[in-house]
Amino acid sequence: MSKRVTSHDVARRAGVSRTTVSLVLNRSDAATFSPETRERVLQAAADLGYKPNSAARMLVSGNSETIGLVISNKDILSVDAFVPQVLHGIGEVNQRHGFHVLLESLASGPGAGTYDHLVESRRIDGLILLNPRQDDEALKRLIENKFPIVLVGTLRHPEEASINYSASASTRQAVDLLADLGHRNVGMVAFAPPGFVAVEGRKEALRRGLVARGLDLADSAVEHANFSAESGHAATRALLTRRPDITAIFAGNDTIAIGVISAARALGRRVPEDLSVVGHDDLPFAAWLSPALTTIRNDAVRQGALAAEMLISILEGKPVAERRVRLQSELMVRQSCAAAPR
Amino acid sequence: MSKRVTSHDVARRAGVSRTTVSLVLNRSDAATFSPETRERVLQAAADLGYKPNSAARMLVSGNSETIGLVISNKDILSVDAFVPQVLHGIGEVNQRHGFHVLLESLASGPGAGTYDHLVESRRIDGLILLNPRQDDEALKRLIENKFPIVLVGTLRHPEEASINYSASASTRQAVDLLADLGHRNVGMVAFAPPGFVAVEGRKEALRRGLVARGLDLADSAVEHANFSAESGHAATRALLTRRPDITAIFAGNDTIAIGVISAARALGRRVPEDLSVVGHDDLPFAAWLSPALTTIRNDAVRQGALAAEMLISILEGKPVAERRVRLQSELMVRQSCAAAPR
Repeated sequence: MSKRVTSHDVARRAGVSRTTVSLVLNRSDAATFSPETRERVLQAAADLGYKPNSAARMLVSGNSETIGLVISNKDILSVDAFVPQVLHGIGEVNQRHGFHVLLESLASGPGAGTYDHLVESRRIDGLILLNPRQDDEALKRLIENKFPIVLVGTLRHPEEASINYSASASTRQAVDLLADLGHRNVGMVAFAPPGFVAVEGRKEALRRGLVARGLDLADSAVEHANFSAESGHAATRALLTRRPDITAIFAGNDTIAIGVISAARALGRRVPEDLSVVGHDDLPFAAWLSPALTTIRNDAVRQGALAAEMLISILEGKPVAERRVRLQSELMVRQSCAAAPR
Repeated sequence: MSKRVTSHDVARRAGVSRTTVSLVLNRSDAATFSPETRERVLQAAADLGYKPNSAARMLVSGNSETIGLVISNKDILSVDAFVPQVLHGIGEVNQRHGFHVLLESLASGPGAGTYDHLVESRRIDGLILLNPRQDDEALKRLIENKFPIVLVGTLRHPEEASINYSASASTRQAVDLLADLGHRNVGMVAFAPPGFVAVEGRKEALRRGLVARGLDLADSAVEHANFSAESGHAATRALLTRRPDITAIFAGNDTIAIGVISAARALGRRVPEDLSVVGHDDLPFAAWLSPALTTIRNDAVRQGALAAEMLISILEGKPVAERRVRLQSELMVRQSCAAAPR
């Protein structure tokens, strides 16, 4: 009886999948097995001397059955509901496969946080990283060293595995809607400081959409907020004070849109009569704001679930057909856009 | 050289605290130590044969340096921003102490989820459990078996360790405000189905406040929502259709309040002119809703931080002066309450 018994050995002996072994031994409630199946797994584990103790199992198999989730800016965790959506999607998939999720959030600012210690301590088998920064050199090294990692977002690295989505088509649709409603001066309140790949991508998508309609996005029409409604409020006040001719604003996320709407009110402008607002993400509350928010849907639960599925496939050595998945976002038209005021 | 070298031994030999040992060996960015200190720790670890590999360390010390966070209803994760607030508070404390957090959310419904497997697998040293259910028998057993566990919320168990807060005084203040504004028929849209300790507690606090002013809370004035703005919208429509005389509503949380406001609008009622609304939690967006939400502040970041501090003290064998911490909530008066309509 070798000391290096793995769950694969148990699965082979019991004639079941490795996932079933993991679920039975972890007492997961994600699936109900017959008493016969449970007994077969437990008997095989006993026969082989396989220890369903995670510390022992980690040493024996080199496998912690734990996924790390790294959030590249911890400020987002406390103020926006996007991260819990992703977590929810990851959690659903993990539970089916008997994996756990270890959460790590990084301080803000360039190079402020590292997650090398997570990788080196072998606490985790693989990593999901949310909202990567272009200047994250440690991340590039991990990708190049073939550490199992899936990005939610993109670094535009040829070797990355990522779940990303394109907002180009739906941004174009939203611009067309606003242009048809007579808007000529469109602004943007980004959800984070410059440097995040997603911020630059959304800015470019908006610029291209506007240019296609003979309009433009001047630098003076852009403000950068910082994830929260409060920062969206402050950025919108600055933007509308500098550029009072702006009649429509793209908010970087739906939480920022709450701040855009309240800043408009504070400046004596009604939404949508005096100012049209387009959100981003379609978080669960967006349809229930007053007015109901027109927003670019970017299904965070699905992104989390797909990232977890891809990472688990990589960890289990299964083929991954497409390592750079690109989803399409969708424009949800509700009540926050109206004809441009005269 | 014994195999049972612990970080205590390394700390003693290096003449530093165990936290410093953990931070240096985990390469934490939470503190910057002098090269001399780092070298002393690394030398002591090498002298003693202490392995800074978490799997090995878990076996050797029986200590995974990981806290489990269990969310007793996974639906809340995807729709409300309360949980990430708590996570943020836990994360700040964990980073200072070199601990990690393993997240586990449970299916909804009585007895649907268990977390025994987390405890038995020794993946975690201790547990923080959010929003306990009164009928959670497994939790009672863990507490009685002295497993290190801290509740955010309460089970009203004599042996529990918990961070809880009382909304009685601030609910009373809010009732006084509404009664002084001429409201006589006050309703409630609870944030979860019956069975959660916090739901029953808030209902009782509201009832006591109303009775003290010669009013009451009839069963017909209460609806139960389910964490989300959408459920708050539906519950409010049902409530105001059954009881159109209601002129003020206590929302179970701020996300539900978004749904209360939108349901009022859909029924042709303005907030606050025709319906006053009081939220609960004071999530970061609450002050930026339109109208700015009057709400009962229940500092989730602080609750998370205090729970993590208490749990780490228990794990490190330090004395805990008060095992049942009861905070006071605070009424934040903004713009969503006005004189009762005639």
